[in-house]
Amino acid sequence: MADGHTDVRALLFDVFGTCVDWRSGVIREGEALGRRHGVQGVEWGAFADAWRALYEPQMERVRSGQRPWVKLDVLHRESLERVVREFGIAGIPSEEMDEYNRVWHRLDPWPDTRAGLMRLKTKYVIAPHSNGHIALLVHMAKRVGLPWDAILGAEVARAYKPAPEAYGRNVEALDLRPGEVMMVAAHRRDLHAAGECGLRTAFVPRPLEYGPGRAADPPEEHTYDVVASDFVDLARQLGC
Amino acid sequence: MADGHTDVRALLFDVFGTCVDWRSGVIREGEALGRRHGVQGVEWGAFADAWRALYEPQMERVRSGQRPWVKLDVLHRESLERVVREFGIAGIPSEEMDEYNRVWHRLDPWPDTRAGLMRLKTKYVIAPHSNGHIALLVHMAKRVGLPWDAILGAEVARAYKPAPEAYGRNVEALDLRPGEVMMVAAHRRDLHAAGECGLRTAFVPRPLEYGPGRAADPPEEHTYDVVASDFVDLARQLGC
Repeated sequence: MADGHTDVRALLFDVFGTCVDWRSGVIREGEALGRRHGVQGVEWGAFADAWRALYEPQMERVRSGQRPWVKLDVLHRESLERVVREFGIAGIPSEEMDEYNRVWHRLDPWPDTRAGLMRLKTKYVIAPHSNGHIALLVHMAKRVGLPWDAILGAEVARAYKPAPEAYGRNVEALDLRPGEVMMVAAHRRDLHAAGECGLRTAFVPRPLEYGPGRAADPPEEHTYDVVASDFVDLARQLGC
Repeated sequence: MADGHTDVRALLFDVFGTCVDWRSGVIREGEALGRRHGVQGVEWGAFADAWRALYEPQMERVRSGQRPWVKLDVLHRESLERVVREFGIAGIPSEEMDEYNRVWHRLDPWPDTRAGLMRLKTKYVIAPHSNGHIALLVHMAKRVGLPWDAILGAEVARAYKPAPEAYGRNVEALDLRPGEVMMVAAHRRDLHAAGECGLRTAFVPRPLEYGPGRAADPPEEHTYDVVASDFVDLARQLGC
């Protein structure tokens, strides 16, 4: 185990991008939906990026108090309506849009995710700390076998990352001190906020998050407690 | 599968008494504590019963609004202080009392609990719906391998059973309708309250909950959707 992390008892994981490949899932189901309805000329990679790009501004309205906390399905559904319009897609029944909206429950993990989590679980409490809601995270975990010990995150905290309350309330739910909890993410902003709240941090880059050849967050040197190439490497570095 | 439960998607479990044998655990650790401190003449079965007997009145003060929601560790610790005094036990350092208080995190499951849950998990979302808090339930599950899909219960609901909000908010966290959720318990009161909220109910008697030869809740005929002899029988009846 790397020096200085001997107090860590629990690991909290960012999910979209860090544990699962949201972009490939959104593209795959979008293409299938388009084929069923004879939709022509949509570049589904650009569609996925546009949908995801509305995620932060949507959550910011909740974080800033402009609207109350809602489940992520609700925010995703509003964004989907807008992106479908922007891409000139029409004629898809509302129930099929609802079903496509739940693609975020059906994302595939990165190849190392499950194996790494199984090893980490032998020594640590492992839980998602996602802006996704409990039902979404349960459906995702059951579909692909993510072995979480608990489902934490925005719905338990009633706050979205990177708001400090989100980290604080999840640490509190674990009955631990912030220094006993490590946040694992592929995103600098998430880890920066976690570090500000006193949590330990582990950076795991996911270079394919935004598709092949597109820039993902690189680590900042000397900023994190651990930098690992994937979840299996993280398990090795944390002594599992 | 028994007729009429085809809509059920998730099972919520009472924990103390239904999944785990609280009395034997409290006795075992109490006896060890007593030996270490030369405590004489305490009948630890009676001690366990007295500690447990304060559980309901303690929670009632929260349910009635006399005090805000707190983690079960806090209520257990206050009750422990009182029971220790009543039994004339003295001289145990506060840290050891804290440690004994956490015996509720270290209870053993009934012999069929884990095997039944493993089978039920293949078809249903399974989660505890306990008055225990998240950390307690995580510690218990990791120690003995209870394969929960999520940790629900009082802390997610910020309400103790049998308050209707406790059931309602846990159903809501699963994004299901009440009729899609089945409450599993060895206690009539819990199932009665769940049924009033529209949940399906499964009664699993635990005749040894209060010790050999002591009365536990018998089922009321025709009142529950399922009556099962243990969790493996429940899995069989629910088609797992």
